[in-house]
Amino acid sequence: MTEERRTDENVIYVGSKPPMSYVLAVVTQFSDSTEVVIKARGRAISRAVDAAEITRNRFVTDAKIKEIKIGTESITNEEGRTSNVSSIEICLTKKKSK
Amino acid sequence: MTEERRTDENVIYVGSKPPMSYVLAVVTQFSDSTEVVIKARGRAISRAVDAAEITRNRFVTDAKIKEIKIGTESITNEEGRTSNVSSIEICLTKKKSK
Repeated sequence: MTEERRTDENVIYVGSKPPMSYVLAVVTQFSDSTEVVIKARGRAISRAVDAAEITRNRFVTDAKIKEIKIGTESITNEEGRTSNVSSIEICLTKKKSK
Repeated sequence: MTEERRTDENVIYVGSKPPMSYVLAVVTQFSDSTEVVIKARGRAISRAVDAAEITRNRFVTDAKIKEIKIGTESITNEEGRTSNVSSIEICLTKKKSK
C-alpha cells in the first residue's frame, strides 16, 4: 500500500440515504485514515455538504476541508440517452491520530 | 466603488427556480465583472453547482473556479426554533474582458 492517498477505501459515495448514514461512514473511515473524500452527484450534492459539515462540526472537530472540487459527468441511461450531471468531491483531512 | 471585490452586486443567490435562471444571472453579471460568487443553502446547493458548471461549460468557457467554500448557517424559523443548514459559496473568475 502506498502512503495515504486516494485509494478507493477512503472515498465515501453519498446517495439517497439520510445524511447521518454518511456521517457515520466518514467518521468510521477517519479511524483508519487521515484523509477522507466525500463524493456525490446530482441531488445528493447537498447531502454530501451536510455530511461533511456535520462530521466537522460534531464528530471530527479537528478535520479540515483540504479541497473541494466540482465537475460535470456524463451519464448514459438504460435507453442509451446521455445526460450531464454535476458532481462534487469534498476532501477532509485531519492530523495524524493523537 | 472599490476594485473588483465581493460587493453584493456580484453575488448570485440560488434558490428554487430552474438552474437556467441562475445561469442567466451569472452570465449577465460576468459582463460587468470578472468575478461572480454563487451562493446557496440547503437543497439549493446542488442547483448552485449545476449553475456554475453550466455557466463554465457552455457560456463563459474562460471562467475558472477560484474558490469553493462550504459552511453551516443557523436559521431561526417563525416559531423561534433554530436549525442548521449547510451553505456553499462558489467563486468564479475570468480574465479581464477581451
